[in-house]
Order: sequence, then structure tokens, then C-alpha cells
Amino acid sequence: GFAKVDHHRKKRQGFPEVVFGEGKTAEQIISIIKALRAKNNQVLVTRISKEKAEFVQKACPEFTFNDTAQILFWKTEAEGNSHGYIAIICAGTSDLKVAEEAAVTAEVLGSKVRRIYDVGVAGLHRLLNHLEEIQNATVSVVVAGMEGALPSVVGGLVSHPVIAVPTSVGYGANFNGLSALLTMLNSCASGISVVNIDNGFGGGYNAVLIHQL
Amino acid sequence: GFAKVDHHRKKRQGFPEVVFGEGKTAEQIISIIKALRAKNNQVLVTRISKEKAEFVQKACPEFTFNDTAQILFWKTEAEGNSHGYIAIICAGTSDLKVAEEAAVTAEVLGSKVRRIYDVGVAGLHRLLNHLEEIQNATVSVVVAGMEGALPSVVGGLVSHPVIAVPTSVGYGANFNGLSALLTMLNSCASGISVVNIDNGFGGGYNAVLIHQL
Amino acid sequence: GFAKVDHHRKKRQGFPEVVFGEGKTAEQIISIIKALRAKNNQVLVTRISKEKAEFVQKACPEFTFNDTAQILFWKTEAEGNSHGYIAIICAGTSDLKVAEEAAVTAEVLGSKVRRIYDVGVAGLHRLLNHLEEIQNATVSVVVAGMEGALPSVVGGLVSHPVIAVPTSVGYGANFNGLSALLTMLNSCASGISVVNIDNGFGGGYNAVLIHQL
Amino acid sequence: GFAKVDHHRKKRQGFPEVVFGEGKTAEQIISIIKALRAKNNQVLVTRISKEKAEFVQKACPEFTFNDTAQILFWKTEAEGNSHGYIAIICAGTSDLKVAEEAAVTAEVLGSKVRRIYDVGVAGLHRLLNHLEEIQNATVSVVVAGMEGALPSVVGGLVSHPVIAVPTSVGYGANFNGLSALLTMLNSCASGISVVNIDNGFGGGYNAVLIHQL
Amino acid sequence: GFAKVDHHRKKRQGFPEVVFGEGKTAEQIISIIKALRAKNNQVLVTRISKEKAEFVQKACPEFTFNDTAQILFWKTEAEGNSHGYIAIICAGTSDLKVAEEAAVTAEVLGSKVRRIYDVGVAGLHRLLNHLEEIQNATVSVVVAGMEGALPSVVGGLVSHPVIAVPTSVGYGANFNGLSALLTMLNSCASGISVVNIDNGFGGGYNAVLIHQL
Amino acid sequence: GFAKVDHHRKKRQGFPEVVFGEGKTAEQIISIIKALRAKNNQVLVTRISKEKAEFVQKACPEFTFNDTAQILFWKTEAEGNSHGYIAIICAGTSDLKVAEEAAVTAEVLGSKVRRIYDVGVAGLHRLLNHLEEIQNATVSVVVAGMEGALPSVVGGLVSHPVIAVPTSVGYGANFNGLSALLTMLNSCASGISVVNIDNGFGGGYNAVLIHQL
Amino acid sequence: GFAKVDHHRKKRQGFPEVVFGEGKTAEQIISIIKALRAKNNQVLVTRISKEKAEFVQKACPEFTFNDTAQILFWKTEAEGNSHGYIAIICAGTSDLKVAEEAAVTAEVLGSKVRRIYDVGVAGLHRLLNHLEEIQNATVSVVVAGMEGALPSVVGGLVSHPVIAVPTSVGYGANFNGLSALLTMLNSCASGISVVNIDNGFGGGYNAVLIHQL
Amino acid sequence: GFAKVDHHRKKRQGFPEVVFGEGKTAEQIISIIKALRAKNNQVLVTRISKEKAEFVQKACPEFTFNDTAQILFWKTEAEGNSHGYIAIICAGTSDLKVAEEAAVTAEVLGSKVRRIYDVGVAGLHRLLNHLEEIQNATVSVVVAGMEGALPSVVGGLVSHPVIAVPTSVGYGANFNGLSALLTMLNSCASGISVVNIDNGFGGGYNAVLIHQL
Ligand SMILES: Nc1ncnc2c1ncn2[C@@H]1O[C@H](COP(=O)(O)O)[C@@H](O)[C@H]1O
Ligand SMILES: Nc1ncnc2c1ncn2[C@@H]1O[C@H](COP(=O)(O)O)[C@@H](O)[C@H]1O
Ligand SMILES: Nc1ncnc2c1ncn2[C@@H]1O[C@H](COP(=O)(O)O)[C@@H](O)[C@H]1O
Ligand SMILES: Nc1ncnc2c1ncn2[C@@H]1O[C@H](COP(=O)(O)O)[C@@H](O)[C@H]1O
Ligand SMILES: [Mg+2]
Ligand SMILES: [Mg+2]
Ligand SMILES: [Mg+2]
Ligand SMILES: [Mg+2]
Ligand SMILES: [Mg+2]
Ligand SMILES: [Mg+2]
Ligand SMILES: [Mg+2]
Ligand SMILES: [Mg+2]
Repeated sequence: GFAKVDHHRKKRQGFPEVVFGEGKTAEQIISIIKALRAKNNQVLVTRISKEKAEFVQKACPEFTFNDTAQILFWKTEAEGNSHGYIAIICAGTSDLKVAEEAAVTAEVLGSKVRRIYDVGVAGLHRLLNHLEEIQNATVSVVVAGMEGALPSVVGGLVSHPVIAVPTSVGYGANFNGLSALLTMLNSCASGISVVNIDNGFGGGYNAVLIHQL
Repeated sequence: GFAKVDHHRKKRQGFPEVVFGEGKTAEQIISIIKALRAKNNQVLVTRISKEKAEFVQKACPEFTFNDTAQILFWKTEAEGNSHGYIAIICAGTSDLKVAEEAAVTAEVLGSKVRRIYDVGVAGLHRLLNHLEEIQNATVSVVVAGMEGALPSVVGGLVSHPVIAVPTSVGYGANFNGLSALLTMLNSCASGISVVNIDNGFGGGYNAVLIHQL
Repeated sequence: GFAKVDHHRKKRQGFPEVVFGEGKTAEQIISIIKALRAKNNQVLVTRISKEKAEFVQKACPEFTFNDTAQILFWKTEAEGNSHGYIAIICAGTSDLKVAEEAAVTAEVLGSKVRRIYDVGVAGLHRLLNHLEEIQNATVSVVVAGMEGALPSVVGGLVSHPVIAVPTSVGYGANFNGLSALLTMLNSCASGISVVNIDNGFGGGYNAVLIHQL
Repeated sequence: GFAKVDHHRKKRQGFPEVVFGEGKTAEQIISIIKALRAKNNQVLVTRISKEKAEFVQKACPEFTFNDTAQILFWKTEAEGNSHGYIAIICAGTSDLKVAEEAAVTAEVLGSKVRRIYDVGVAGLHRLLNHLEEIQNATVSVVVAGMEGALPSVVGGLVSHPVIAVPTSVGYGANFNGLSALLTMLNSCASGISVVNIDNGFGGGYNAVLIHQL
Repeated sequence: GFAKVDHHRKKRQGFPEVVFGEGKTAEQIISIIKALRAKNNQVLVTRISKEKAEFVQKACPEFTFNDTAQILFWKTEAEGNSHGYIAIICAGTSDLKVAEEAAVTAEVLGSKVRRIYDVGVAGLHRLLNHLEEIQNATVSVVVAGMEGALPSVVGGLVSHPVIAVPTSVGYGANFNGLSALLTMLNSCASGISVVNIDNGFGGGYNAVLIHQL
Repeated sequence: GFAKVDHHRKKRQGFPEVVFGEGKTAEQIISIIKALRAKNNQVLVTRISKEKAEFVQKACPEFTFNDTAQILFWKTEAEGNSHGYIAIICAGTSDLKVAEEAAVTAEVLGSKVRRIYDVGVAGLHRLLNHLEEIQNATVSVVVAGMEGALPSVVGGLVSHPVIAVPTSVGYGANFNGLSALLTMLNSCASGISVVNIDNGFGGGYNAVLIHQL
Repeated sequence: GFAKVDHHRKKRQGFPEVVFGEGKTAEQIISIIKALRAKNNQVLVTRISKEKAEFVQKACPEFTFNDTAQILFWKTEAEGNSHGYIAIICAGTSDLKVAEEAAVTAEVLGSKVRRIYDVGVAGLHRLLNHLEEIQNATVSVVVAGMEGALPSVVGGLVSHPVIAVPTSVGYGANFNGLSALLTMLNSCASGISVVNIDNGFGGGYNAVLIHQL
Repeated sequence: GFAKVDHHRKKRQGFPEVVFGEGKTAEQIISIIKALRAKNNQVLVTRISKEKAEFVQKACPEFTFNDTAQILFWKTEAEGNSHGYIAIICAGTSDLKVAEEAAVTAEVLGSKVRRIYDVGVAGLHRLLNHLEEIQNATVSVVVAGMEGALPSVVGGLVSHPVIAVPTSVGYGANFNGLSALLTMLNSCASGISVVNIDNGFGGGYNAVLIHQL
């Protein structure tokens, strides 16, 4: 009917189709995740509200909901890379939601994660206190709103790839995250690539692809 | 004087500082690359015109110039990853310059590269003819202008990370590459991250970081 | 009074004036459609909510309401082209509302329609499974949000005109459909023309004009 | 080498691949059109300057160059629709170049064309003088710069599809054609679809697809 | 306190300060209009909701509220120009609110007004039916949303000044009235000047200044 | 041929069609102005370079060229309003070109003009020195670039209509005149209407329409 | 946990970290301000609603809430500069909220403030009435919405630094404060620097840094 | 004639009017600076090319030209603040021109300056090497292009005001300095205010106003 679930994806891409919860009804989500659960050993729904998630959980009680990340998931067994980890770094308290979307995505898809939060550039010593832990990661996901300068600073301090995630945190000339997005695309540091504004999922997913090479 | 060369970078980041040639005089470039050459075994200058490069080569005859990529470089010995390769894919003939900037960057930094050019989505069979070669890469750099749809299609066919490079090829509502940039940031395919418009260097550099993990 | 209904339009343009329901009160709509119904054999109101539609239906019980398409219509007899059909294609489940606005508009105006939904470029095989059905259409309406790449791919596979309809589905650098709109305007495929963001009505209407030639 | 000519296109799409001349060298163009000429009976190069065209004509003397349209073409025999015609309408003298790109494209691809030029909305009687000729066309291509209002007026007077082509003619708040583009996308007239700014080729090509149904 | 009422304005500018109701509390409005009423023979409050207006009317019962125009006013005697009139013209039913803001402003400030509504360019005959009435005005205010083409057409038919008022009516690439605004600023017709989006007040006020010369 | 001169315009609009010189060849201009000169007693060509004007003057020696305004014109006899005058006011020395386009347009069309130049808001006393002369005008044209604040200040000091003309003078966040344009559209002063960036012609033309009422 | 309070800031920067209240829960705010209060003699929370502030005050009754400024603060003793003062100037009644955010910030951080409100450029005499008081300040903070012209006028009348604060007051082509922001960045007056739209806090903070030199 | 030199400015604002050289002829500049030199003891012309400056120097040989800063000036005696200094900091070699415009402006207006150049955030140690020198300044001017992150980092390390100057250095999504401008306006560090893109003059001038308090 309304959806053609891409069952071929796990074979083609390593991970099953991830469900974008926004704009789907709870009923639609239930019907899609039942189909996915039958053929995969992980199922991930992003951007799903607490209310919708709880409704879905009644029909699918084996699913877990993470409230900060707004992610509903199910996972049978540990797969993925057992050595190394992904550093998830964020600039301010308000970027937490997006950072957690990245972190939970990465964990459900089988990667180990270390969280280094509220270490924005206006107080550099906070970042430098965690330098070694960051430098030892296989890949970093750096989440920042407002002016979004943190990925440039991290990118200049590490030798691994940095995935930058701009957030819509800010006001006025922030233009809902445009400011942070442009900052990250124009970074002087060389090893940075960027995903969409507030796309914590994309940040986590790309990091997993790199971590699991 | 005018520049503080970042000699510490090779140790901190794995590769020496890359010189951005645009807006620098030939004399400035000579003075910087002599300083870099003394302490590193690769030196890379991007966005340098043929005229400027030839002037520099008189003072530094050991440097090689790649005209399409507008890159001047020097390299002593093969370093880098000997297994696997980076796929550099581009949509149209006009994207060649940016694709070559990515390819030459990657090669100078020590990675093996396979070029798959002029395979844009308006004639899908051209891409599908090279599917296996693409799927076997460790990482892909996908370069496209106009509507920039190629990374979405590639991203849906592979299980490795895709670095998308929008180009400024196009006219009118293309707005100098904005169209392709937005396309890539909004891709439905999950494993895609994006660098700045026409930033072939960034595409190649990120791919090398991933390839050499 | 407040409105000058364009009774001349059916003669001049083949179809009577279509009522844009947004921003009109139910009373205004009733007064306009009664005037139109007296002189035409089809009446179409777009962008009308369920509540307003039900109120109108009390005064005009011969009208039918389509909830997904948000269209209220009345139609006496089958007119229109009896051979061939319009393919209405959409990329994702969230584009359904706009796709249905196109489909219902086309059907009420007398064209036959085939729906091919949820076949976005991130899983190409889904589209290729319906290739023949698409290639045999007289004209296609292709609806897509996010990066809006689907019309480029369809446009490269068919020999008939493609009407592209960008939707506002997405977030962040999607800028409420701007991303998909620019993609479609910059398409490398040649036979594509574009209507406004979320303008399913325009997509359906243009397709009917072409289909009924 | 640098280009993968899409020889399959004529079969798949009815017309061979059209060469976008901008940014290609004369040598590249010669090599591409020789390959195309061998397997097709029409070859079209758009956006090619007089200098480049004359250089190409030395190697390919059977090609004709149209200076206003900046189109180079070769065509063996009359193909295409023998009844009906395409109306190419433009608003001001400065829109001529784009209107001719549409007209010559349509003629080379086998359609009959009628030109109605310099009939912008600031002097309505000029348009109304040609009303019957416009209403009798199978499809209209309406080209306009500045505020781009002409397609709305034409669209309200005819019962066939209108392809609107915004041009970059204007200054200041015209923003290189953005003004005309937005006007056309927001038209109150229902049967209008839009191509990229200055895309006369796209206007002509879409009209041919419709005319030859 | 919070406001410095500009009592000098009537002498300097011919009309007293007009109160912008949006964002002011009913109490603030009462205190301002009492001060204004003491020294002038007209008082005008724009952009005031029905609720706020009714609250103000309790304290100032001599004030009249116009619901469509969202204007609250008080006026002792007829002043102003007794010959000629202002034509207030609008394109669609949805532009009524802004057109009425212009009309009521002009009437309160002492000008005679003729309303010609719902005569947009998609059905030209409706406008042409009122041509003489429009041509005989001293000045026209032309209000339009969507693509905003009406002022260009009117501007080409009259020999008096046209004040164009873009409205935010529309969706998608309308960008809240930007489309109509750009159209009007780029008009080919020469005697057109433009005020802010939805600024019916400005349209009416400028027309009065011209009418009362 | 290429142009349909609007001979009807003088009757319909009071003034003959004005020729927009940009993008027209000298030959095209000669052919158009010969046709206009035959039926009118004023002919005006705007945006014409010195070179083109001198070429045209060889064929039409009765025409006068104003270099600062880039206007070429011919005029038989004094027509127009003999009482009152238009004040043309500009903010800085760099706005002169646009101010002169307005002034010369107004003079050729028969109005008396007073020029008050280089009186921008950063040195208010310069403006206040000319206050009486400005207040006594029938209408003001206020030309300003950079932040474009001058019309707001003038608008608060006079009781007649103000036509504001933004210029593209400035750099950086000026965005080629966008800054001044937005300033003028958002003015707190009530009697201001706006024309396109750098449209001195439009400013002058609108002022004449008002002056000659 | 979720926040790394920057206790080092008072030593490094002269003032403790200011808490951005938007998007933080009352509980989070309580935990942060308790930590800050223990080590500083001023604590400032901006952008906090009345509801949240009252909740926080239950746990921290020594805190004061300023409703217009939406600021919650605590302060032990008078510190700061005892000679001179900061002039806080605003254009209209609707800019009050932002002006008060600046004023209260400055007062809590220890500076003396003079408020000169509702003195926008449309009625210049109101500003000129306070000229001496403004000229005698050490630094001015000038707050304005709509076209934002006030800082240019003030900047041309004083010999001290001016901090300009654009507000989002306005509609239509104001684009939520973009208009005022661009005006201020492009000011012809030389001694003006700008902070983000609606950033009264930043205006006040910068003024204090200057005042306390 | 064409210019009204603001001789009153030195008294009103502390410094004489500064001449903006762009778009003025050498003759105009000579006439203005002769007038200024007669009544002041400093004269400053910015944005003047070498060619124009040399021409002016023939008539005014007492003037000095600084080629990097594109500033022509004359100065009789040392005035200004003798204690403290302004730190002028820039991120990359390409920002030099703008940094020098700030530095030379400040020096001519009588302030002492320290230059700290090429210390961008991608190599933090370069900045930290100069930390004490920066922290001891009275005020900093921080110049940066690309992503413009340097002011945020400096702003978090000092207790004095920071004037941020975005430059147009960069390409693609830099949009001619928009990226750096937005970054600086959205900075998390509190004591930062911003001037226009490439406005080194404004940066220097504001710093002098603060330094000379
Ligand atoms: N083509 C390029 N695009 C973007 N960044 C580059 C490019 N080439 C070099 N870079 C970066 O620019 C920095 C050098 O800037 P600069 O000091 O101006 O030479 C290097 O560290 C690189 O990270
Ligand atoms: N959903 C829609 N989107 C765009 N235009 C529409 C839509 N529905 C109706 N229209 C057009 O809007 C016109 C009617 O506008 P109105 O007079 O406001 O009802 C009709 O002539 C249609 O061409
Ligand atoms: N400088 C100008 N700016 C804007 N419109 C102009 C200008 N000069 C002439 N026009 C208008 O352009 C129309 C002529 O356009 P065209 O047919 O291209 O010569 C005239 O009717 C004028 O209304
Ligand atoms: N109203 C405000 N606008 C802009 N920045 C602010 C505001 N209030 C506080 N800040 C800054 O935001 C930082 C705190 O951010 P957070 O860690 O999210 O609480 C502080 O260090 C301040 O510099
Ligand atoms: Mg924090
Ligand atoms: Mg190709
Ligand atoms: Mg789907
Ligand atoms: Mg014409
Ligand atoms: Mg209507
Ligand atoms: Mg001046
Ligand atoms: Mg007020
Ligand atoms: Mg450097």
C-alpha cells in the first residue's frame, strides 16, 4: 500500500532501512517495523515522539525508547566493531538532543561511543581537558549550534575524520542553523565533512560506517 | 613575517599543512613550500594557476604540476595504504576539474584511486555498468554539479561512506552550486557527508583519512 | 460582492475556475461553488480542511470529499481522454498528500491515473520494478521532497513529458522545499518542467492538459 | 576518456543526447558530435559561442550555426509532427536570445514554430492583437524577464499547456532572474510549468515532447 | 514613560501620528490615543485585533472598529479632497484584508475611495470591465499576492501613479510575499512604486498624500 | 521585426515609451527612436553608454546625451507643470549617477527639479540646512546607498510624498543594494514608496506623474 | 553531567558565565546557578520566562526577576565603574523588551545606565531633545527594529563608541530583523559595531566592557 | 558642487571625515582632501588604488600611501592615547589586507598597535603562543575569513572588548563573507561586536574610540 519497505537494503548497504518517524502515524510505524523486524536483527525509528513511541510499544513491547534522542529501537545481539570508539562531542547544553540522536544511532548499529558534552570554544580549557580521549577515537562526531566553531577546533587537533553536525540552536542571524552549517562547510581544518542541520542520525550513521571499516 | 607555517601539523594530524594557493603570490608560495619541504616528505599546493606554478617550479624544479587539478606537489616516497582504493565518481564532463582535484590530492597523500567519470543520473546505465567497481571501494568521493543527484543514487547502492562534493557547474537557479549543495545535504541515502562547493581537495582529503584507517 | 467568479473560464480554458479553499470561509466557498455548479459539470475545491468540507457538504450534499488530497469536488459525467493514462509517481510515504492532490485533480478533470508511490532513489530497484508502467504513460507527474532527485532519474528513463512537483518534506537545509525545488529546476534530464512547492494541484492540472491533447 | 556519450538515449528518450557547449573545448565538442552524428539523424549543441562554433565547423562543415540562439546543429531530414505548431512568445526585445534558443531547439527537433515577440504586459494590446494565433497553438513557450508576468496573462487566455521560461534580464531586485522565476512558479493561472532561468533549450524541448504526442 | 507621542507631527506632516497596534497592550493604546485625541481631529490605530479593540472601545466609546481592516479610528469632521477618488484594486479574494486596510486608512484620512476587487490577471476581462473607472482615478492602490502581476497590467493602462502593495497570500516559492514584492519592484510599467508586504496602511497613506495635493 | 514599439502609449499613459538602452545594439536603438520621434515630442533612452550614444548621435544629431545620467534624449518644446518643483535628494557623492538619472528623466518629461546632494544622515546638519527647500517641494525623490536611512529621515520632516530609490553603493553585507532596499521598504515614516535598486529613472518618472497632477 | 560550568571564566574574563535560559529546564537552571552562586558575587540568567523564573525563585529566593527584560539575577554588592554612564537608546515602544535586556544586564554587571526610549528617526526632534545626555555618555547602546536607522543618526552625533542592537520588530520585508541588521552593518557613521538580532544582552555586556575600562 | 565636506565632524566626533576612495575620481579626492587638510591635523583616504594614490600624491606630496592597506593619509603630529595598545589579530595570510586596513587606520588616528597574524583556529598553538600579548591589550580587532571562528576563541580568552571583522576570503558556501559574518554575529563568547565584511577601517576606528576613552 502506502509504503514499499526496502528489504534488500541490509544486503546492499550493511544496515536495514531506518524509519523516519516524523509525519508517519503510529499505525504506519507499527506496520513498517513489524515487516522490518521479521527480516533483520536491528530496527531503528528516529524522530518519534514519546506519545507515538508508547503507543507503538504496546504493539511491539520488545522495542526500547530513548527520550532525549527521540529514538525507538530493537536489537537482538551485539554486532559491530569491538575495538576503538566513536567520540561524540557537543558544544553546549542545548545541543544535547542532537548529540544523543547521534550517540544512540551509533550504539544501536553496534559501535562503542564516548560522550564529551558542553565543551564549546568560548571556554577552550574544557575541550583541552579531554584532548587525549578525543585524539584516541577512530572518528569524531562534533555537534554545535550558534556559530558552530567547535568542529574547526577539533578538526585541527586530531588525525582522524570528523563528521560535523550543525544544530538549529540559536536565534536571530542564526537563521535556524544556517550559521552553524556555513561555518562547518567553510572550515579551514581539512578533515571535516558535514551533514544536514540537526541530523544527529546522519552524524552517527556516517561515523559507524567509518568505525566499522 | 606574513605567515606562521604550522610545522607541528604532521605530528598532530598525520599530514603536513596544505597550502591554499589562491590569493598568494608566487614568492609567498615559494617561501612557504621551502619551509614545508624541509620538514616533511609531501608538499601540496592547491588552487594554483599554471602561470604561478611554472614560476614556482623555476625555484623548486622537483615539484610537479597537474594542470586539470590545479595542484602543485612534491612527494618523496610511497606512503599510505596499499590495499583497497578510493572511487572518485563524477556526473558530467564539466565536473572534471573538481574530480581531479580530489583524485590528485588523494594520490599525493598516498592512496590508490579509481576514476569513474561522466556517469550522471540522466543516463543511469552508465553508472550501473561500473557498479561492482564502485561497491568494492573502501570509500567513494562523488562529485556533481547542476542538481547534484548522483551521491544520493550512489549512496543507495553501496555499504561504505560517501563523501559528496557539490560543484558550481550550472546556471540560473543553480546559484553557483547552492542547488547541488542543498541536494547533497538533504539526501535520503544515509551514509553521505558533504564538503564545500568545488572543494575537491576536501573530498580527497577526507577520503584518505578514511581509507588509511 | 467579495468575489468575481470567472464564468467565462470553461469556454476560454476548457475547465471551470478551481476554488483555492485556503483562507476562504465555508460560507464563501458555498456561495462560490453554487454559482460554479450552475454553469459547469465539474467543480473542484482544493486545500480545504475536513471540518470546512463537512460544513460545506451539509449545504451541498452532492459533493465528495477526499481527505488525503484535501479536495472537495462534484462531477456529473465522465469526460476526458479514454486512452492512455497519467503516471503519478512519488518518492516517499510523506509525499503522499501532495501526490494524491495531483491524482484526484487529474481524475476529477477526466483523466485516468496510475499511482506508483514510495519509489525514491535511495532504493532504485523499487523504481525499476515499475519501469514499463511508467514508460507507457502519456505524461508523468513526479512528486518528491528532501533532495528531490526522483524527477531527474525518471526524466532520464522516459520519452514523454515529466511534470516535477517539489514537496516541503524535510528539515534543516531543506528550507521548506527550496532544496527539492532547486534540484528539479536544475535537472540534467531534458524533458522536465516544474510547478510550485507542494502544488499537487498544478502538477495534476498540467498533466491533464497534456493528456487530453 | 573524459566523456561517456549516451548512445542509448535516442532509443530510450526519442531524441539523442544534446551537447551543453559551455565549458567544453572545441576539440571536446568535435569528438562528441562526431560520435553522435554516426548514430543519429539530428545533433544539437547549445550555449556555444560564435568563435567555438566556427572552429568546430571547420572540422564538421555540414553543421549550421544560429548566432542569436548560440546553437550549432546538424539534421538530415524532416521528422516530427506535421500538424499544429508551438507558439514561442516573449515579453521584451532583451529576451530574444532565450526565445530563439527555444525556437531553434524546437525546429531542429522537428516541430513547427510561430514567433510572437516583444508583447509584454505593460502594453497589453500588443498581446491581444495575436490572441487567436496563440490560442490555436498546441502548446506555448512564454519567455520573460524583469517581473516575468507574461506567462500568467497568457496562461489565463489559452486552453493548452504553457511552458514558462524566466530570463535573467533586469537589474537590482531582479537578482539575475530570481524575480521572474518566482513569479512564474506562483502563477494564479493553472496550466503553467516552469524551467530554469534562461533555459530556452528546456522550454523548446518540453514543448516538442508535448507537441509530438 | 514608555512612549513619546509625536504631537508635533500634524503640523509637520499634515496628519497626526498613526498608532501601530501590534505588540502594544490595550492599556498602552488607550493612553496613547487619549493623548492624540486631545490635540487632533483624527486618530487611527492599525493592526489591532477585535478583542483589543473592544477593550479599548470601553474606555473610548467614540471610536469605531473596522473588523476586516483591523483598524480602530475616530474622526470629527470631513476634511480632505472633495474631487477625484482613489481606486483600490485587488487581485483575489484572499487579498481583501490588506485592500481594506488601504481603503479604510484613505477614508479616515479624508479621501474618497472606489473598490475594484477580485480582478486578477488570470481572468483579464474582469479587470477590463472596470477600465474606465480605474483610468479616471487620481491614483491607484493595487494589492496582489501570489505572483503579484496585477500592478504591472494596471500600470500599463493608466496615466496616474500606481502604489503597489504585495501581500503574503500564497505558499511554497511565494516565501511569504517575497515573490509578489520582487515582481512589483521589477515591473516593466514605469509609474509604479512599492510599499512593504501586507502594508495596506502604507498604500492608503501614500495615495492620500498624492490625492490631496 | 524584433520590436513592437508601443505607439499607443502616449495616448494611454501621457508619455511615450521610454527605451531601456541596456542590451540593445546602437542599430536597434536608432531604429526604435526614429519610429518614436515621428509620433511624439519627447524621446528618452536610459542606461546607454557614452560610446553607444555617440554612435546613435551620428544618425540622430538632434539628440542630447547626459553622461552622468547615461541618458540620451530629444525634446521639442516645454510641456509640463510650471508651478512647484521636485526635490531630488541624495545621501553621498557615490549616489550621484542614480540621482542624476532621476533628475534628467524628470526634466526631459517637463518638470522643474531642485538638486540637494551629499546630505546623508551621518552629518544631519547638512540636511537640516536645506529643510525649507525640501519641505516646499511637491514631491521628493530620495536616493541613498549603504544603509539607505535618508528617506526615513526626510519622510519624517515633510508633508508630501517621498519616492525612495535605493542604490547599489556599498560592499559586503550591502549585497548590491539589498540593504538599502530593505531599509526603505521597512521605513517607520509613513509617506514613502520605493522603486527598484538603482532605478533613478523610475524615481524621476513617478515624481513627474505626481508633480503633474 | 549535562553541563560543564565554566568556573574559570570570572578570572579569565572579569565576569562569571551568564546562563542562557532558553531551552533549559527550571531544574537545570537551579543546578547551574547554585554552582555559580557559590563562587561568584553576581549571577545572571537571560531569556527566562516568568513561569520558569518563579519556579526557580522558590529554590533560590535571593534571586530577583525582571519581567520586561526576562532576566533573573542575584548580586551581592556594588562593583563596577562609579563615574560615567551607558546611554541605552531605543527607537520605538516595541523595542522596549530588548532595550531592557541591555539595561538590566549592564546594571547587574555594575554599570550606571540612562534610558532614552521611543526616539526613532521618524520624529527627529525627540532624539535631539536628549542630545546632550547622549553625547555625555561613555558608550551608547542603540536598539532599533523596522528599518533600524537610529544607530546611524546617533553615530553621527557622538564621539564615543556605539553598540547597535537590531530587533526583530517589523513585518514583511523586515524578515525577522534582517532589515535592521543589514542597515546597522552598512552604516555610514564610523563608530558603530553590531550584535545579533534581539541580543540586548550582548549590547549591554559589550557596553559594560567598554564602560569599565 | 558634488560634495558637502562635513567640516563640523572633528568637533562633533573627535575625528575628521574619512574619505571613502572607491568610486571617486582622483580629482574629486584631491579637491576633498585639500579642503579637509586645511582644517584638520589628520586626513585619511581608504579603499584607494595605487594608481589613484600616486596621481593624488603628485598634487599632495605630503601624503603617504600604504599599499597593503590601500590607505592614503597625512598626519601632522602624534595625538592619541600613549598607554596601552590595540591587538590586531588575523586568522590567515589572505586576511592581511583587511587586517592592515584596521592597523593603519588605528595608527593614523593615534593609537599604538600590535599585529598578531596567521593564527587561525586550525592550529591553536599559534594563537596560544601569543596569549599574554593579546590579553594585555585594551581592545582587540580580530579579522577572519572562511568560517570566521577566531573571534569566538579570542573572545573566550580575554576580558576586554573584541571587534570582529569578517572577510570575504573563501569560496563556495562562503558566499563572499556571509559565512564569517554570521559566525561572528552568533558567537557564544559574550564580549564581541561586529562590523561589515572586509570593513578593516571600521574595525580600526571602533578600536581607537575604545582605546582613547
Ligand atoms: N582547496 C582548498 N580548499 C579549502 N581549504 C584548503 C584548500 N587548500 C588548502 N586548504 C586549507 O587551507 C589551509 C591553509 O590556509 P593558508 O594558511 O591560507 O594557506 C590548510 O591548512 C588547508 O587545511
Ligand atoms: N492548490 C492550488 N494551488 C495553486 N493554485 C490554485 C490551487 N487551487 C486553485 N488554484 C488557482 O487559484 C485560482 C482561484 O483563486 P481564488 O480566486 O483565490 O479562489 C484558480 O483559478 C486556480 O487557478
Ligand atoms: N532605466 C530603466 N529602468 C527600468 N525600466 C525602464 C528603464 N528605462 C526604460 N524602462 C522601461 O522599460 C520599457 C521598455 O523596455 P524595452 O522594450 O526592453 O525597451 C519602457 O516601457 C520603460 O517603462
Ligand atoms: N541572551 C543571550 N544571548 C546570547 N548569548 C547569551 C545570552 N545569555 C547568555 N549568553 C551566552 O551563552 C553562554 C552560555 O551558554 P549555555 O552553556 O548554553 O548556558 C554564556 O557564556 C553567555 O556568553
Ligand atoms: Mg554551557
Ligand atoms: Mg555527459
Ligand atoms: Mg519509503
Ligand atoms: Mg519592448
Ligand atoms: Mg478569485
Ligand atoms: Mg559625503
Ligand atoms: Mg513611538
Ligand atoms: Mg596560514
